[in-house]
Amino acid sequence: CHCPLPHGDCPLSRLLRHLLTARRSLDICLFAFSSPQLGRAVRLLHRRGVRVRVVTDAQYMGVQGSQIGLLRQAGIQVRHDQESGYMHHKFAVVDGRMLITGSLNWTTQAIQNNRENVLVTEDVEYVKPFLDEFERIWEKYNPIKYKFF
Amino acid sequence: CHCPLPHGDCPLSRLLRHLLTARRSLDICLFAFSSPQLGRAVRLLHRRGVRVRVVTDAQYMGVQGSQIGLLRQAGIQVRHDQESGYMHHKFAVVDGRMLITGSLNWTTQAIQNNRENVLVTEDVEYVKPFLDEFERIWEKYNPIKYKFF
Repeated sequence: CHCPLPHGDCPLSRLLRHLLTARRSLDICLFAFSSPQLGRAVRLLHRRGVRVRVVTDAQYMGVQGSQIGLLRQAGIQVRHDQESGYMHHKFAVVDGRMLITGSLNWTTQAIQNNRENVLVTEDVEYVKPFLDEFERIWEKYNPIKYKFF
Repeated sequence: CHCPLPHGDCPLSRLLRHLLTARRSLDICLFAFSSPQLGRAVRLLHRRGVRVRVVTDAQYMGVQGSQIGLLRQAGIQVRHDQESGYMHHKFAVVDGRMLITGSLNWTTQAIQNNRENVLVTEDVEYVKPFLDEFERIWEKYNPIKYKFF
């Protein structure tokens, strides 16, 4: 990270630290995912045996710098939306326990240049609807139902 | 709203209902604001005497269909960011009490076509950091410091 903050206060470091607590599962639902650091962290978790699942937006996944191809090459399960509108969520759930959500897409542009928010909570009242949404769209975008491009 | 859900379940109606509970203040921090229905609701609150403040993104505020011009014409205070990165927040705080945040920009495209999330909470632990952020950038983007374009 190149931000001027002390390492412990750097938002990217804090996000990485939360993600790297995953022991069993990491469910990611992101409109845009192009940050190399976050891509590396997700692949690391996959190699450690964490069950990683990624849902992303079909229009955005092919843009230059997208991490989606690298994640798929690493053997991580990725599914994409099937609608003309955007799959605009920006959240992740760690071990079915911790919700990370907000305005932040996982892109270098957003991390370095934008004004963004990320809300992290383990309150079941907030985590559960996001988990439910993840399972709903994970099934809805099952590639049995379409051809991955 | 044109969604197929019963009126009480329609996400736009629910969002409007939350906003229209405002009695004293409405602080809005939005990357993109082009929904006519939400624009009308905000102007209605302003006419009722609610103190409405809006922070938005400088690059996006001028696009076709933006509500920002109508809000300013109605006498609502609007400020915009001064950075090259995006002011990418999508949140509102009602009466300093209720936080409405998520992936949703207040655009017709997002409301009708996208897959989005909106988290509504009155839990001070979550509301306070957003209120603090609002006050911080409201002051940072004080137009004494720049020319409104």
